[in-house]
Amino acid sequence: MKALLFPLGLLGLIALGRLLSLAEAEPPAASTSPFAGGRWIDLTHEFAADTLYWPTAQRFQLEVESRAMTPKGYFYAANRYRASEHGGTHIDAPIHFAEKGKTVDQLPVDQLMGPAVVVDVSAQAAADADYQVNVADFEAWEKAHGLLPQGIIVLLRTGYAKRWPDPKTYLGTEQRGAEAVPQLHFPGLHPDAARWLVAQRSIKAIGLDTASIDRGQSSLFESHRILLEQNIPAFENVGDMSLLPATGAHIIALPMKIKEGSGGPLRIVAWVPGAL
Amino acid sequence: MKALLFPLGLLGLIALGRLLSLAEAEPPAASTSPFAGGRWIDLTHEFAADTLYWPTAQRFQLEVESRAMTPKGYFYAANRYRASEHGGTHIDAPIHFAEKGKTVDQLPVDQLMGPAVVVDVSAQAAADADYQVNVADFEAWEKAHGLLPQGIIVLLRTGYAKRWPDPKTYLGTEQRGAEAVPQLHFPGLHPDAARWLVAQRSIKAIGLDTASIDRGQSSLFESHRILLEQNIPAFENVGDMSLLPATGAHIIALPMKIKEGSGGPLRIVAWVPGAL
Ligand SMILES: [Zn+2]
Ligand SMILES: [Zn+2]
Repeated sequence: MKALLFPLGLLGLIALGRLLSLAEAEPPAASTSPFAGGRWIDLTHEFAADTLYWPTAQRFQLEVESRAMTPKGYFYAANRYRASEHGGTHIDAPIHFAEKGKTVDQLPVDQLMGPAVVVDVSAQAAADADYQVNVADFEAWEKAHGLLPQGIIVLLRTGYAKRWPDPKTYLGTEQRGAEAVPQLHFPGLHPDAARWLVAQRSIKAIGLDTASIDRGQSSLFESHRILLEQNIPAFENVGDMSLLPATGAHIIALPMKIKEGSGGPLRIVAWVPGAL
Repeated sequence: MKALLFPLGLLGLIALGRLLSLAEAEPPAASTSPFAGGRWIDLTHEFAADTLYWPTAQRFQLEVESRAMTPKGYFYAANRYRASEHGGTHIDAPIHFAEKGKTVDQLPVDQLMGPAVVVDVSAQAAADADYQVNVADFEAWEKAHGLLPQGIIVLLRTGYAKRWPDPKTYLGTEQRGAEAVPQLHFPGLHPDAARWLVAQRSIKAIGLDTASIDRGQSSLFESHRILLEQNIPAFENVGDMSLLPATGAHIIALPMKIKEGSGGPLRIVAWVPGAL
C-alpha cells in the first residue's frame, strides 16, 4: 500500500477512499429506492361517518352498493361516497378564496411534495384555543434551525390532531349548522404571519392539524386569502405530527384530482429519516 | 499526512476518504430532495362529469355550494362531490373481491410506493380489444430486462389511456346500465398471468390503463380474485404511461383514505430519472 499511496495526493486519496467504500458496500437491491433509510408516517385521518366537517358543510357518507357473495360464486364489495370538499384531511386549492386562483387539478404535483419543517406551537395551543401562530413563532424557529429554506413545505403542529374526531374539543362545538359557526374555537395562523411568509419567505405549501388555516374565531379568513392569492395551498385537518422532526422530513401530499375543484380529500404522508 | 496515514489500516483509510469527500462537498440545499435529478409525471385522469365509470356504477358529480363574492367582500368557492368508488383513476382494495381482504384504509402506504416496471403490450392491445396480458409477455419482458425484482410495482401499458375519456373506444360501448356490460371490450390481465405473478414472483401492486384488471369480456373476474386474495391491490384507469421507462421509474400511488372502502379515487404519480 505504501508505494501506492505516496504519489496519490489529496484528490487521489479521496477517490481511493470512495472506491474502497463502494467495494465494501452491498449490491443495490431494495435500497435503490430514493427513500431507503427512513420510514413513512401517514398523516391522514380516515373518511368515515364521524369525520369532522365545517358546521355548514355536508359530512362524509358511504353508501354500500354490494358487500355479499354473488350468484356467480364470488364475493363482491363496492360503495358510493359523497361529501363536501372541505372536511376531513383535505387541501384548499387557491380558488377556494381567490377568484383567479388555481383549481385543485391545476396544482402541479411538484408543489405538493418536498422537504418540510415542523413549527411546534402545541404548548401555546394547549393554553389558548384561539391561539394564532405569529411571526415571533417563526422567528423563534429560525433562531433554532436557520432560515426557512426556499421552496419548503411548512407544517404547523398545534397538537389538535390528538383530539380528532371529537367535535367538542377539536372544533370547540359539537353543534352543526350556521348557528354553530360563531362557537368555533381552534388555533390557526395569524394574518400577519401569513403576510410575512408570503412577503419574506418562499414556501410551496402550508399545513396544520386544525380545521382551518384561519383560527375558529376568524370571520374574514384573511390568512386563507393572503396565502391562496399567491397560489400557496393549505393542508387542513392534517394528522398527528408528533413523530416528525423539526427539519429533515419529506412530505408527499396528493389530493383527489377533482376537475375545477376548490379543494378535496388529501392523502398526506411524511417520510422521516432513520429507523423507528 | 504520512505520519498520520501509516497506522490507519484499510478501514481507517476508508473513513478518512469519506471525511475528505464530505469536506469537499457543497452545503446541502434544494438538492437534498430524494427525488433530485428526475421529474414527476402525473398518471391520474381528472374526476369530472365525463369521467368513465363501469356501466352500472354512479358517475362522478360535482355540485357547487358557492362560487361567488360573499357579502363580506371576499370570493368563496366550495363544492360537493359524489361517485361510486370504482371509476376514474382508482384503486381496488383487496376486499373488493376478497371477503377477508384489506379495506383501502388498511393498505400500508409503503405498499403503494416504490420502484416500478412497465410492461408494454400496446401493440398487442391495438390489434385486439380483447387482448389478455399473459405469462409469455412477462417472460419476454424478463428476457430483455431481467427478473421482476422483489417488491416491484408492475404497470401494464395497453395504450388505452390515449383513448380516454371516449367511452366507445375506451370501454367498447357508450351505453350505460346492466345491458351494456356484455358489450365491454378492452384489454386486461389473463388469469394465468395473475396466478404466475402471485406464485412465481413477489409484487407489491399492479396497475394498468384500462377500466379493469380483468378484460372487458370477463364475467368471472378471476384476475381480480387471484390478486386481491393475496392482498395485492390493483390500480385501474391509470393515465398515459408513454413517457415511463421499462425500468427505473418510481411510483407513488395514494388513495383517498375511505374507512372500510373497497377502493376509491387514486392519485398516482411516477418519478422518472433524468431531465425532460
Ligand atoms: Zn379547506
Ligand atoms: Zn376497481
